[in-house]
Amino acid sequence: MINIKKNLRDIVPYRVNDKPYKVKLDANEGCNYMLNSKLNLDNFKPQLYPDSDAKQLRENMAKYYGCKMENILVGNGSSELLLTTINAFCDIDEKVMTFEPSFSMYPIYCKLSNLKNLTIKSENNYSFSVDNIIKRYEENKPKVIIICNPNNPTGSYLKKKEINKILDKTKQSIVIIDEAYIEFGGESAVDLINNYENLIVMRTLSKAFGLAGLRIGALISSEKMIENLWKVKLPYNLNSVSQLIANQTFDNLEIIKQHIKMIKEERKKVMDLLKELEFKVYPSMTNFIMIKSDIKNLAEKLENKQVLIRDFTKDIEDHYRISIGRKEDNDYMIKKLWEVKNEDR
Amino acid sequence: MINIKKNLRDIVPYRVNDKPYKVKLDANEGCNYMLNSKLNLDNFKPQLYPDSDAKQLRENMAKYYGCKMENILVGNGSSELLLTTINAFCDIDEKVMTFEPSFSMYPIYCKLSNLKNLTIKSENNYSFSVDNIIKRYEENKPKVIIICNPNNPTGSYLKKKEINKILDKTKQSIVIIDEAYIEFGGESAVDLINNYENLIVMRTLSKAFGLAGLRIGALISSEKMIENLWKVKLPYNLNSVSQLIANQTFDNLEIIKQHIKMIKEERKKVMDLLKELEFKVYPSMTNFIMIKSDIKNLAEKLENKQVLIRDFTKDIEDHYRISIGRKEDNDYMIKKLWEVKNEDR
Repeated sequence: MINIKKNLRDIVPYRVNDKPYKVKLDANEGCNYMLNSKLNLDNFKPQLYPDSDAKQLRENMAKYYGCKMENILVGNGSSELLLTTINAFCDIDEKVMTFEPSFSMYPIYCKLSNLKNLTIKSENNYSFSVDNIIKRYEENKPKVIIICNPNNPTGSYLKKKEINKILDKTKQSIVIIDEAYIEFGGESAVDLINNYENLIVMRTLSKAFGLAGLRIGALISSEKMIENLWKVKLPYNLNSVSQLIANQTFDNLEIIKQHIKMIKEERKKVMDLLKELEFKVYPSMTNFIMIKSDIKNLAEKLENKQVLIRDFTKDIEDHYRISIGRKEDNDYMIKKLWEVKNEDR
Repeated sequence: MINIKKNLRDIVPYRVNDKPYKVKLDANEGCNYMLNSKLNLDNFKPQLYPDSDAKQLRENMAKYYGCKMENILVGNGSSELLLTTINAFCDIDEKVMTFEPSFSMYPIYCKLSNLKNLTIKSENNYSFSVDNIIKRYEENKPKVIIICNPNNPTGSYLKKKEINKILDKTKQSIVIIDEAYIEFGGESAVDLINNYENLIVMRTLSKAFGLAGLRIGALISSEKMIENLWKVKLPYNLNSVSQLIANQTFDNLEIIKQHIKMIKEERKKVMDLLKELEFKVYPSMTNFIMIKSDIKNLAEKLENKQVLIRDFTKDIEDHYRISIGRKEDNDYMIKKLWEVKNEDR
């Protein structure tokens, strides 16, 4: 058997939970169902290739993100865009700086592109200090830096002035800020693309828009950068039905705003209840909360009660990530968490 | 400005025609509209991530392609799967053997993965001889061979016994047979995956199934190969609405069979009419026909009459590719071709 390249053989495929559930709070998905009743596919022509330039979608996004459509490239999820970008800029064995803990796919993208991954470990309470980031940057001069902000799975957040400070010191590199969760708190760096042409901001419709199933990511940067990356993106990379449905959601921004407001209120409520239950609860600017618990196999115990949360104990001892869902989902989760806690005594 | 890697800078983005048209015969798309009225999205949950394993779709495909679901990997079009595969097997500067003329994206995939592309030029009437393929293989020992069969844009075809002969001599390499058009003629090599574990067959729902908008490709190979490639495919690579719609088409295989029959009949008719119009017409086992014409700017002249065909004159002097569409589309195209020919006198 001809085997795949040596450096790829030890990749463990991304684990996807498909256990039965009543409440699914393990993947930071949205929870609005507004689309079901309103979907209009009358003009959908499945037999034609998609608009490879996704013009209408990029127009809608430009209005929403506050930039020009020429600043936007869309892809089959942020994954495709991130992989395309690091592959476009980095020659074999060049360095990509990422953080730990952060989104688990970044090191995989590096591996897939034959790049060296330099990870910076978090400090107190799983946050990152700007001074340390800059120090490590200057020591290592990576070609690309990927900052998830707010960070997944910790919920920690770098303020815009901190991002600015980092950008002032990293002009020789491509700086990617993955803002998948920005709608739930914090200030976006999108407008900084006008000041820093090495800045790339990633956005997604998978979280606040509740469209994870459609796999729609956006890469926002200077026009010059977009022109360059256009050369290396695959044609027709975003299918037409995802484009069509996504475009319809931009007519419903009011519902999305309400959804975000609801998530923030629920997040506050859930955090308070978790603290009452004596879990260690980390600050969060996102639609999820990282907690610490010494209950052994907490995720498994909840899974047995058909509540899915994400188990991070292999990477961060005793830590779990719980997505914020609809009120009834969160209440059910808290109720089951209460049961587990009592059974564990 | 930090620029993308040197070897990528001269890539010319894949040209996509977005001229106004009455009849679109430039992209080998399907022409069946069966889905529009029957689409059932009642169970569609846009907010959840797709099934990353695409289990139901792979089950449906396995029945249709005549293999096990464990032999199938699905992707965001064959493009994603091809790029993933060559990247998984080839180290920098290793050789990938392709053919000329063939699908124009293969050399781009090689460039994106930093690989050397070795092209074999076609012989008489743009066909390829097995003996020449084997000779060039042995001289060059490429890591991967990509054969488009039937070939796009020429329509030429290697018989199964010829494919067998090639496979017997190329066991040290990964052999990819791209069968995007196989439903329109010829015999698939899918069952040969049981004899050659280095064989990968690519199929797509973009052509015979008329679902180009959904971007669904399938990679069919030995279980061992699929297990290996699973490690390097991105999670959630095929969105959920494409999966959902594609699954519904497998309940309608009878309509697809009728569609294929219609295309074959129309192909015969269109070929005869083109010959009457004194074009050089190449044999075709596909849903398109390559023609040679000394009418200058033929594609542009047809475009002015709102008929789109594909202009290949930059690569192959005086050559054009015409997709076979519905009866009324083909008749309109022939009528306009007749007008152009008369105006050209």
